[in-house]
Amino acid sequence: MVRTLEIAAIEGVPEIRPGDDLAGMIHDACAAEYPLQDGDVLVVSQKVVSKAEDRLVTVDPDDPLSHKPLVLAEAKRVLRRRGDLIITETKHGYVCANAGIDRSNVEPDIAALLPEDSDRSARRIRDVLIHRLGVDVAVIVADTFGRPWRRGVTDIALGCAGILPILDLRGKPDALGRIMHVTEVCIVDELAGAAELIRGKSTGVAVAVVRGVDPAWFGPGSVVDDVVRSYDGDLFR
Amino acid sequence: MVRTLEIAAIEGVPEIRPGDDLAGMIHDACAAEYPLQDGDVLVVSQKVVSKAEDRLVTVDPDDPLSHKPLVLAEAKRVLRRRGDLIITETKHGYVCANAGIDRSNVEPDIAALLPEDSDRSARRIRDVLIHRLGVDVAVIVADTFGRPWRRGVTDIALGCAGILPILDLRGKPDALGRIMHVTEVCIVDELAGAAELIRGKSTGVAVAVVRGVDPAWFGPGSVVDDVVRSYDGDLFR
Repeated sequence: MVRTLEIAAIEGVPEIRPGDDLAGMIHDACAAEYPLQDGDVLVVSQKVVSKAEDRLVTVDPDDPLSHKPLVLAEAKRVLRRRGDLIITETKHGYVCANAGIDRSNVEPDIAALLPEDSDRSARRIRDVLIHRLGVDVAVIVADTFGRPWRRGVTDIALGCAGILPILDLRGKPDALGRIMHVTEVCIVDELAGAAELIRGKSTGVAVAVVRGVDPAWFGPGSVVDDVVRSYDGDLFR
Repeated sequence: MVRTLEIAAIEGVPEIRPGDDLAGMIHDACAAEYPLQDGDVLVVSQKVVSKAEDRLVTVDPDDPLSHKPLVLAEAKRVLRRRGDLIITETKHGYVCANAGIDRSNVEPDIAALLPEDSDRSARRIRDVLIHRLGVDVAVIVADTFGRPWRRGVTDIALGCAGILPILDLRGKPDALGRIMHVTEVCIVDELAGAAELIRGKSTGVAVAVVRGVDPAWFGPGSVVDDVVRSYDGDLFR
């Protein structure tokens, strides 16, 4: 019996507006398309979380750079600048372009800011789903970040609830019985990236479900506390 | 009909030794457990590729740092150093700890170097599988790298064959019909990370198959040419 993971695109989440019951809409879409089960991991795009939480700001639709003053206001620190590109550290500690502000998949006169607290956003969605469905799911809020040294963006976790962000394998034996010393795997980032493969960028699918993850991965944790590196643990900041 | 991706762990690849017919062994394991189909993406761990290609060096099994001189020999440049940790740029252009040399999942007196050319390694495996099976699969050679700013390692692609490393969505409309300007998605890194979720670090599963990816992703490309950033495109080197 081959071990498998399945990742499903949940297509039926409607366009989200400020104040919408996002968790309820996800619940309804999953119920119709792909009923949730205990142990599922729900990956939700930052964009719909920001819309539901009204993290939207009006900008000049005719000026592609009209959101740049917001970037400097939202950033805690500017790490690099080249032309229009601003690499920032956000107040949450994420390092990303433009303080995570972007204008894709929103109306032309809108820019979307990151959620105030994406771990809290994930917890709220999870709490509603557990309450309404009675199923024990984990939730990841995912966004698209660039990386140094490698071209192309990948999806990573901004926040999570109900899942360990980092799998700590230190002290566990490898396949040859040798003790692994420094292996801490950031499973929430791998799950966010895996979900992007089916959600896609141009299709606007806000939610994916990952089914079949190891039950031992479920537990408490926070992306901001557990994944974002402290300054003194960071050789590149 | 819900769109899904499936990721399967191929458990039956035996311990690989220098000179082994790795592609043939993968072929046999897949045939027994999870017969390959057109459009599958095979993710193969760097470690078994390095073993098959005899990229193994003898080290002192009693000295956990005995591979460090190799690190300096294999690195093109040292970017950062703190204690025993050496962040290097390899001759291929990857930025990673210890020039990618590691001692997990090998015998205690062995250190494994990265393949000479992981894109070529992927092409060779793919060529054998296409020739023997007549199925059009893509191949990714994956390794585990740390990242700046975020704790925990994730799997990324060292090399690939038969799949576009970067999906170029520039000029495509987003879900609201707005043109996306700078969205190039590194799907091979997301696929490598997704495969890690089922392969695991301690279980020694060298191969996973991702089934259900968009057929438009198949095409030519190289991780070293297309993913590794050039110096002048990099703000952090």
